[in-house]
Amino acid sequence: MSETQSPTPRTRLVREPQRAVYDRAAAYEILDEGFICHVGFVVDGQPFVIPTGYGRVGDNLYVHGSAASRMLRNLDEGVPVCVTVTLLDGLVLARSIFNHSMNYRSVVVLGTAAAVQDPEEKLAALRQLSEHILPGRWVESRQPNEKEIKATLVMRLPITEFSAKVRQGDPIDDEEDYAFQTWAGVIPLEMVAGTPINDPRLDPKTPVPGYARAYSRKRARK
Amino acid sequence: MSETQSPTPRTRLVREPQRAVYDRAAAYEILDEGFICHVGFVVDGQPFVIPTGYGRVGDNLYVHGSAASRMLRNLDEGVPVCVTVTLLDGLVLARSIFNHSMNYRSVVVLGTAAAVQDPEEKLAALRQLSEHILPGRWVESRQPNEKEIKATLVMRLPITEFSAKVRQGDPIDDEEDYAFQTWAGVIPLEMVAGTPINDPRLDPKTPVPGYARAYSRKRARK
Repeated sequence: MSETQSPTPRTRLVREPQRAVYDRAAAYEILDEGFICHVGFVVDGQPFVIPTGYGRVGDNLYVHGSAASRMLRNLDEGVPVCVTVTLLDGLVLARSIFNHSMNYRSVVVLGTAAAVQDPEEKLAALRQLSEHILPGRWVESRQPNEKEIKATLVMRLPITEFSAKVRQGDPIDDEEDYAFQTWAGVIPLEMVAGTPINDPRLDPKTPVPGYARAYSRKRARK
Repeated sequence: MSETQSPTPRTRLVREPQRAVYDRAAAYEILDEGFICHVGFVVDGQPFVIPTGYGRVGDNLYVHGSAASRMLRNLDEGVPVCVTVTLLDGLVLARSIFNHSMNYRSVVVLGTAAAVQDPEEKLAALRQLSEHILPGRWVESRQPNEKEIKATLVMRLPITEFSAKVRQGDPIDDEEDYAFQTWAGVIPLEMVAGTPINDPRLDPKTPVPGYARAYSRKRARK
């Protein structure tokens, strides 16, 4: 898990190489904290980018395919995709406009995604997708039946070619700009869960489970 | 602004068409609340998806290109891109695993992006990018000089072919599942700003400006 991935010409960062992270464990930490990815694929030369959920099992990413039915067209041979996960951590206010930035952590995985056909692997992937987003929820839900599993598209993308990019910390201004009179610093940003809202058809005496009451991504990834 | 865009075959939603929004004003509201997009482009048949900032001026999206230098290769003729903006609003916990979902609002814009060459249009686009993310900050910063403007890549994408997709509200279970005993409802999610962190080299007497102290996307888009 601490293997270092040599970047390929396709994943080597050309711009701002100091922000590059090619370490597999660091990339997995980012993948495990996020749960929405943007999947890119190509149809007739036109790129499409679709948001969807994902989960990781070992060195495979499993992507929920229902949102990306256009990918299906070439599926039997597998389809070239790019899966990108971005965690936004803050706005970075420098003294100069030019040095304004954002704090973020992102991972890009390139490769060929294929639909999972084996029902057992598909069920395991769906379970991981669910556990990834909301640990503890799977066992408390009505389990998927055969028809539902068939109706769900899950794509498997081996995490072979990837890179991560991380920017954290204070603004970095040109030396001569530090004398410029303005506020400078970071506005932290975080995805925060609010108070759970009962389904109107729920028996109001049903207790809100802990995984819903105290939802937090940092907790979820543990 | 209330024009309705007929979907093209490329932007018509095939799956879950009831979630489709082809109204320009509704799409612009989503674009104006977000500020991170995922840009998809193609190099040698391989899709790439890169997160970056953006702003909207009228019916054009301006995308900060520094993160996507690979796009530059074919830039003079323009390059086919997909720009996707996703706002995550909550986790939707149904009784059945199959009906679990997320509340979100997303916009997909397809088209040909070109680099902005004219320095005046570029400066106006950069100003809009900045005002879009953090209204009020531009005038309090050290303005970009000629060299910095030259070093910054801004891409223009006309908002011609687009679609939006919106899912909000309670879980929707199969009728026979409403008797299943488990909690069901929505965990709201929101991007929240924390307390601004002063740059260590800032004079600690410098007041934190209002736009940093009370940062909120809902406020920003007004």
